[in-house]
Amino acid sequence: MDYENISAEEARRLVREGIITGDTVAVAKKYVQTNLVVLKKNLAYDFLLFCQRNPHACPLIEATDIGSPIPRISTPTGDIRTDLPGYRIWRNGELVDKVDNITKYWQDDMVAFLIGCSFTFERSLEMNGILMNKSTPSIYITNVQCIKAGVFEGPIVASSRIIKKNKVVRAVQVTTRYNATHGAPLHVGDPNDIGIADVTKPDFGNYHPIGEDEVPIFWACGVTPQAVAIKVKPEIMITHEPGYMFITDIVAEQITIL
Amino acid sequence: MDYENISAEEARRLVREGIITGDTVAVAKKYVQTNLVVLKKNLAYDFLLFCQRNPHACPLIEATDIGSPIPRISTPTGDIRTDLPGYRIWRNGELVDKVDNITKYWQDDMVAFLIGCSFTFERSLEMNGILMNKSTPSIYITNVQCIKAGVFEGPIVASSRIIKKNKVVRAVQVTTRYNATHGAPLHVGDPNDIGIADVTKPDFGNYHPIGEDEVPIFWACGVTPQAVAIKVKPEIMITHEPGYMFITDIVAEQITIL
Repeated sequence: MDYENISAEEARRLVREGIITGDTVAVAKKYVQTNLVVLKKNLAYDFLLFCQRNPHACPLIEATDIGSPIPRISTPTGDIRTDLPGYRIWRNGELVDKVDNITKYWQDDMVAFLIGCSFTFERSLEMNGILMNKSTPSIYITNVQCIKAGVFEGPIVASSRIIKKNKVVRAVQVTTRYNATHGAPLHVGDPNDIGIADVTKPDFGNYHPIGEDEVPIFWACGVTPQAVAIKVKPEIMITHEPGYMFITDIVAEQITIL
Repeated sequence: MDYENISAEEARRLVREGIITGDTVAVAKKYVQTNLVVLKKNLAYDFLLFCQRNPHACPLIEATDIGSPIPRISTPTGDIRTDLPGYRIWRNGELVDKVDNITKYWQDDMVAFLIGCSFTFERSLEMNGILMNKSTPSIYITNVQCIKAGVFEGPIVASSRIIKKNKVVRAVQVTTRYNATHGAPLHVGDPNDIGIADVTKPDFGNYHPIGEDEVPIFWACGVTPQAVAIKVKPEIMITHEPGYMFITDIVAEQITIL
């Protein structure tokens, strides 16, 4: 089944009904996809500031009103409790559960943060003949540090895409337009330069081998808050399963910078 | 005295010593200038969210750590209590004082929000032969509404620049690059379209007449929080005097999107 060209609303319905159960890299590619971070109100200010200070890793598309699971500005018919194919439940910095909806975990003092996902520029990479991803890219914890905000600190997590060497410049140009979903790369080239010791063992996602005429390009990734959670240990934090994103109603082409 | 080419640090020193006492439109033009909003911690979350939801009016360059008047990320040698040429003190939505430093008003639970100012793209407008402002532009309260966030709501305030008709396209291109300091215009053309009844009577700044071959272009403006304050009536709020900005150490060319 080809879900690339369906609407965001249709995609969310298929997720909710348990028909789409895996990653969303090739789903409803016209729309902005987002990572999810759910925190209780007492940590919301620090996290909002963390996003402001680290816009490459955490470009915030929307924060819901306190207590509301509905992203009423971008996606009024969406519900972040049910519309992602997979979630992770973190207690005191430990991953304690993986679920396919968070209705039973949602509380009245929670805020949902929707952070732009690089899946949003997949279609543009494809139309530019740069690459076509059919599964979640390799995702690594780097040694580049975020700027601390309140209690939140930790390393930037980066997604990697393997690109032909003669496409590097175009890949930088294309993704720069998408500054609301990570924008220009964090790094081009040697994974060691950003603290990735073994490129064959990604921390999340799937390993994609690097050919002779290819080079890896790394983009700051919205999985960053999951690496941060391990350091900060909030009493409770809910995130998406890496690669299993929330699909907003925003048409990607409408939030490019140029 | 020509202050256009001095450093940001020198400009802040001259302000602090009472040598620069007026608007900063032609001061240290290489650097990012910002509007100021100071609020107590209890309103900081709502205001931070207001900035996130209204990035054209309130593009946030930095929010200081709670209790700190030092923008340690962008401008570690700056102090927002003394480094602006003029401030406004608001109590319960009323303008109660105008001062040239806020040392006596600063409290340990305050946060300073630095919001990008369109003065930052003045040099680029000038180098493109579009216009050269020697005084604060006209600033108007429009009828375009901000997206509400918590208690904060109100109209967008816009600065206006009078441009030759054959320069409109270039003005849009040039300012789009400066998305961290309001970016592309809010409106081009008839002031009535955005609720400005009498263009000769700006709410802030100076009136600049419109010639036969000219058209006004409007940019969302960091004075917006002052119009919002009148509606929200925080117990205390401190802002800059319109046109009297904080000059950061950030080189403007380094935060353009492209």
